[in-house]
Amino acid sequence: MSRKETLTFPPTSIPPLTPYLPPLNKPKKPWVTLTYATSLDASLSLAPGVRTTLSGPHSKAMTHYLRTQHAAILVGVGTAMADDPALNSRLEGIISLDQQPRPIILDPRGRWAFTAENKVFQLAARGEGKAPFILVSREEEEEEEEEEASITTQQEQEKILQSVGGKYIPVEICSETRRFRWRDVLKALAEEELDSVMVEGGGEVINSLLVEPENQLVDSVIVTIAPTWLGQGGVVVSPTRKENAPQLKLREVSWQPHGEDVVLCGKISRT
Amino acid sequence: MSRKETLTFPPTSIPPLTPYLPPLNKPKKPWVTLTYATSLDASLSLAPGVRTTLSGPHSKAMTHYLRTQHAAILVGVGTAMADDPALNSRLEGIISLDQQPRPIILDPRGRWAFTAENKVFQLAARGEGKAPFILVSREEEEEEEEEEASITTQQEQEKILQSVGGKYIPVEICSETRRFRWRDVLKALAEEELDSVMVEGGGEVINSLLVEPENQLVDSVIVTIAPTWLGQGGVVVSPTRKENAPQLKLREVSWQPHGEDVVLCGKISRT
Repeated sequence: MSRKETLTFPPTSIPPLTPYLPPLNKPKKPWVTLTYATSLDASLSLAPGVRTTLSGPHSKAMTHYLRTQHAAILVGVGTAMADDPALNSRLEGIISLDQQPRPIILDPRGRWAFTAENKVFQLAARGEGKAPFILVSREEEEEEEEEEASITTQQEQEKILQSVGGKYIPVEICSETRRFRWRDVLKALAEEELDSVMVEGGGEVINSLLVEPENQLVDSVIVTIAPTWLGQGGVVVSPTRKENAPQLKLREVSWQPHGEDVVLCGKISRT
Repeated sequence: MSRKETLTFPPTSIPPLTPYLPPLNKPKKPWVTLTYATSLDASLSLAPGVRTTLSGPHSKAMTHYLRTQHAAILVGVGTAMADDPALNSRLEGIISLDQQPRPIILDPRGRWAFTAENKVFQLAARGEGKAPFILVSREEEEEEEEEEASITTQQEQEKILQSVGGKYIPVEICSETRRFRWRDVLKALAEEELDSVMVEGGGEVINSLLVEPENQLVDSVIVTIAPTWLGQGGVVVSPTRKENAPQLKLREVSWQPHGEDVVLCGKISRT
């Protein structure tokens, strides 16, 4: 495996993270780690679709360590389209593809117009990351304004996906929201024998996992906070409030300074 | 001085805070420490006017230590009205009123309908806190729908204020925004020989101090973050963006875990 950039994560920083990572003895439901990086004003980015660098080298290395500790890494299609993310781990010392997480992209409406040039396919082709699994709607969508060109694109995309060992996974969508239900997403991962998943973004995906009762599916939360304000108008992590739902708190809290940033680890409080 | 509740702040926690506190050799402009506590989604409270407990006992004690290290503590009238704050320090071991900060309330339009029952007056009467200085508009406001009752109230309020040693301080307001300019506020404090001030809230006051170029008046920032999400609809700390203004960052950053919360200390980056 040849990589231009590798990241070093100090071994002394690992023990404080361990209680927040998937256990060796894994439960039936995939272990869910929700992880993201924000500014002091809770923004992931300056605006939708604008890639914004927030975390410094230390916390970036931590994220790449976390990726080696999970079977899968999940992002929404908005993030896939905006950031063209690599979704692999560039941690120093990775010798096998087994140490890489499986990229999962939630794309219920088939919006992602990827090509073989997208990073995740480039890396999969070079054996530097696993091929992605793309979760799409099980139902035949009413193909609005469908054209032949688009069908050709779909066939080409399927070819690209399959050529690197990836696939589409059909999952039922909620008829009301036209989105996946988290239970169905996790069930699909379990069927692929993916027993842990790191949910990394973007804003919609994270917020949908923080609301009641979906937040009860989250096993641990790891948030990086950078000492900066992005200002009003950013993509903010803040769940919708539900009537009579208890205030969303973390328990077993640990704050770990990493360079200029802080990393917060915790578990969703059940009270 | 008799107090029901005192707070203990461990001496070992003081040295990491010292670089962010007013120096002994003070400059002409009052030293400004901006300090507030938010949730992970950057909210000060669940909604305007709703007092929301966020920080735990450790970081609360820190705030009361900080209050002893400043000549003044400043809040907006919205906070004074919503929270009826004590604005004194209840730190263990305070023996003299000299150790208490001067409460400053920004009330350009004279909205605060206080009585002698408000905490800040009760404490001042008992010698457990200094009497407040209320900054009001210098200009004669066009008294809209002014009634006699209200004039009586005004005279009574002035009596309450003076009886404990407080006063109104007239300050010019910006004709456009109908608000004070921060330079004028700080000048008024300097004229009262208040050489340091801790700005504690609320949202409007904090956000107005974080925008360009007002943020250049801030000497240090101390933010407590609690491991909880208040959800959408809260009073959020997030400055308005100004075109061509650099991203607002902190330098000389220090993250200090205090119980379940983290305390971030830093200085506004000038680059």
